[in-house]
Amino acid sequence: MTNIFAIILAGGSGVRFWPLSRETSPKQMLQIVGEDTLLRQTIKRITGFVPPEKIWIVTTEDKAQSIRFHIEKLGALAKGIQFINEPVGRNTAPAVGLAAIHLHHLSPESIMVVLPSDHAIPETEKFLKDLKFAIRGAKEDFLVTFGIKPTRPETGYGYIKVAKSSKAKPEGTFKVDRFFEKPDLKTARRYFSDGGYFWNSGIFVFKTSKILSELQTHLPSLYKTLKEIESLLFVPDKPDQPDKLNKPITQLPNNSITKRSALCAMHYAKLEPISIDYGIMEQSHHILMVPAKFKWSDLGSWAALDEIIEKDKTGNILKGNTIDIGSQNSTIFAGERLIATIGLKNMVVVDTPDATLVSPKEKVQEVRKVVETLRQNDREEHLIHKTVERPWGSYTVLEKGERYKIKRVSLKPKARLSLQLHRRRSEHWVVVSGEARVTRENDTYFVHTNESTFIPVNTRHRLENPEDVPLQIIEVQNGEYVEEDDIERFSDDYGR
Amino acid sequence: MTNIFAIILAGGSGVRFWPLSRETSPKQMLQIVGEDTLLRQTIKRITGFVPPEKIWIVTTEDKAQSIRFHIEKLGALAKGIQFINEPVGRNTAPAVGLAAIHLHHLSPESIMVVLPSDHAIPETEKFLKDLKFAIRGAKEDFLVTFGIKPTRPETGYGYIKVAKSSKAKPEGTFKVDRFFEKPDLKTARRYFSDGGYFWNSGIFVFKTSKILSELQTHLPSLYKTLKEIESLLFVPDKPDQPDKLNKPITQLPNNSITKRSALCAMHYAKLEPISIDYGIMEQSHHILMVPAKFKWSDLGSWAALDEIIEKDKTGNILKGNTIDIGSQNSTIFAGERLIATIGLKNMVVVDTPDATLVSPKEKVQEVRKVVETLRQNDREEHLIHKTVERPWGSYTVLEKGERYKIKRVSLKPKARLSLQLHRRRSEHWVVVSGEARVTRENDTYFVHTNESTFIPVNTRHRLENPEDVPLQIIEVQNGEYVEEDDIERFSDDYGR
Repeated sequence: MTNIFAIILAGGSGVRFWPLSRETSPKQMLQIVGEDTLLRQTIKRITGFVPPEKIWIVTTEDKAQSIRFHIEKLGALAKGIQFINEPVGRNTAPAVGLAAIHLHHLSPESIMVVLPSDHAIPETEKFLKDLKFAIRGAKEDFLVTFGIKPTRPETGYGYIKVAKSSKAKPEGTFKVDRFFEKPDLKTARRYFSDGGYFWNSGIFVFKTSKILSELQTHLPSLYKTLKEIESLLFVPDKPDQPDKLNKPITQLPNNSITKRSALCAMHYAKLEPISIDYGIMEQSHHILMVPAKFKWSDLGSWAALDEIIEKDKTGNILKGNTIDIGSQNSTIFAGERLIATIGLKNMVVVDTPDATLVSPKEKVQEVRKVVETLRQNDREEHLIHKTVERPWGSYTVLEKGERYKIKRVSLKPKARLSLQLHRRRSEHWVVVSGEARVTRENDTYFVHTNESTFIPVNTRHRLENPEDVPLQIIEVQNGEYVEEDDIERFSDDYGR
Repeated sequence: MTNIFAIILAGGSGVRFWPLSRETSPKQMLQIVGEDTLLRQTIKRITGFVPPEKIWIVTTEDKAQSIRFHIEKLGALAKGIQFINEPVGRNTAPAVGLAAIHLHHLSPESIMVVLPSDHAIPETEKFLKDLKFAIRGAKEDFLVTFGIKPTRPETGYGYIKVAKSSKAKPEGTFKVDRFFEKPDLKTARRYFSDGGYFWNSGIFVFKTSKILSELQTHLPSLYKTLKEIESLLFVPDKPDQPDKLNKPITQLPNNSITKRSALCAMHYAKLEPISIDYGIMEQSHHILMVPAKFKWSDLGSWAALDEIIEKDKTGNILKGNTIDIGSQNSTIFAGERLIATIGLKNMVVVDTPDATLVSPKEKVQEVRKVVETLRQNDREEHLIHKTVERPWGSYTVLEKGERYKIKRVSLKPKARLSLQLHRRRSEHWVVVSGEARVTRENDTYFVHTNESTFIPVNTRHRLENPEDVPLQIIEVQNGEYVEEDDIERFSDDYGR
């Protein structure tokens, strides 16, 4: 039986879905379409085909922990999933290469199903059926991609031209003439009317050995670096040899980073960022395409929701707290705050607690410039949301003022924060629902709903939810400095 | 010397500036243009001409108290200003009539300068100069209006056509041919190119005796009701005869409402709403117009800001926390939250803590429909802001959840809230700046910055700022019911 692995690429930052996406909540972690987040949908979709322990998530080191917590909602399924952490993001060719050298070590003739973690594919059955065709092609030593039949002259995707006598063997695959970069509108119209062009879906299937040999041919410099990393990682009989595949190459605790793992990280960081589409698929002569029968969107921008979400009679997509007077073909993503719109045409409005975006659909890709401006001005609206998810629950910053900050803190049943201390702030806690167990230096006591307690500055403390229902407290922080980094942790259930 | 009174009409609800305007913060109380709110600018503008005790504000009973507190910022000036409260709003003709019967009683030959409280007139000197011409016309027993030279074929204003040989006596006034209702675009273009048409500014000057006789002629039913009210109000030698003009006809304490004042309110409520423009100015044959040399806008909608606020090179008006990428001719009114806009053209975006409006300028008058929807759905976003001004300071609702509400409460120096009690909630107070004096039943004690206290349910309490600097507390309310109307007041500095 062939060894099939799903490689889910989850390193993207998803700037294009700002303000809903943030650096700490990238697009793959958002529930934009469907009943779950894009990443969790991607995992669930492939589990019909690949067992959890053969699902590997490739992501960057800075996102790995939050993605681990994020997939915990999948329960037992999540426990099997392995992680490969990139020290930094270097686009998809290095990410796929890094997965390939790990797999090569384990099973050189295995097949890799490379899946972006942030695409929408609502029809799982059709997808899995097409995937079977692709697997057959991969077994014959082809790089197999999925082509999407264009529904309009889109300029935002790359195109795949199939060969004149395109039907190939094995059954269900087409011979590929060549790949084309994103075209201008005139060219896109020609592709669209021609009928022999498909959108490049970014989903690939190939043998581990085959992709490595193609990397060697078309991206020799990347290949060389990958081999160096491989030789550092897989040394027999050395103490930091990865005994388990889910031991990420760079996520060793600070005090045990060895020379070799540091070298790996250094090599990887020096790589040129390049996509697998551009670096391999556009160059290789061993490509087959499966024409997708499933519905697909790469959700490349707010405007792309049109392809995948059902619109109302006037072409609008309205979500959350909205009042609309006569808009058309517009997408309004609201949350709890009211968004009132009048007579919009082809517009996108996205609201979050601390930032709102308003743009015509045709310009919404320029949201990158907004994020760039935020970054340059050292602001926070591109980094975090007002509500921050944590393994024990979440907190929401309700207000930050001079010398104070107010948070609503929600703890899952039986969860607890780390035993911690703040050097520059004290905290007042008012329990508004549930019951808290509080540790304050050597005391441990209970605080019930409508009771409060005080944690002075420089005092070891821990907040804990001993009950089976959620605990909510309002925390009023006082001090000259009320930022998150004023924290010393002494003991933490989540290894932080 | 002629007795000149300024009658400031401040009963408007300002729906057209939603979401910045709310029922409790109507347009006249907003600082939209200039360095102060529109009402306070109106008062300051006229004080060069009329002493404070001859400035009367006509407003509706429900707004009177908040408008009194609102003008307190004007200091000594505010103390002289008199109020006439309408039991309910019935448009401008009844409002002017009500002022006229009060004035008639005091000084029948006085001159009334009728001023809307929510217009923008940035050039006070030019305005006062033109006003002198108008006063001369009023002395000659004319109804005098100000005409604004049109700058475009506007369909949102009424027009005044001046007579062919338009120059009249006294100097500076024009004879009026007739008034026209708001025209359609074609007609507006004709008026605009003709040159003999002016916009109706809604600012009027006339003798008290003259407006009463014109009311008698053109609105006999309104006149009759006003005379009935007059006969009820001004009965000699009866205990509730108004001894002072600022004793509003309907603002007597509940327990001393007499039959007569109740009758007044009842009569007034039965009046047909009608504007003075439509009811009198369009009917009368004794009209003169002063062509205004001052800059003016009635700020009839968000789009009207274009007339009065200076735009940047690309025609945008950007206020507050905004990032814009290439918009043109758009007005973005942000507050503390970030509003990011891309490539907007002729759009209006207005943000407040709990609601955002997005509309093309040409449709923004339909904001009325949004407010209507809010009203029908029994919501709050058209009634109050998250921050509510109070005579002692202000409070902001930071969050409302199940069985709790969190407020930031700010007290002015030396101010205090009423001695009060809540039947269904307790309160935790954390002082985040300043120092509080707290009364809790028979105890009085101080709570310093970074200290907290607890007010149990059913406990008489009072919060007080004994210091010369502002006091800020965070209040966490707990209880089955956390609405504002759960309050019993025992003693209040502000007569509530």
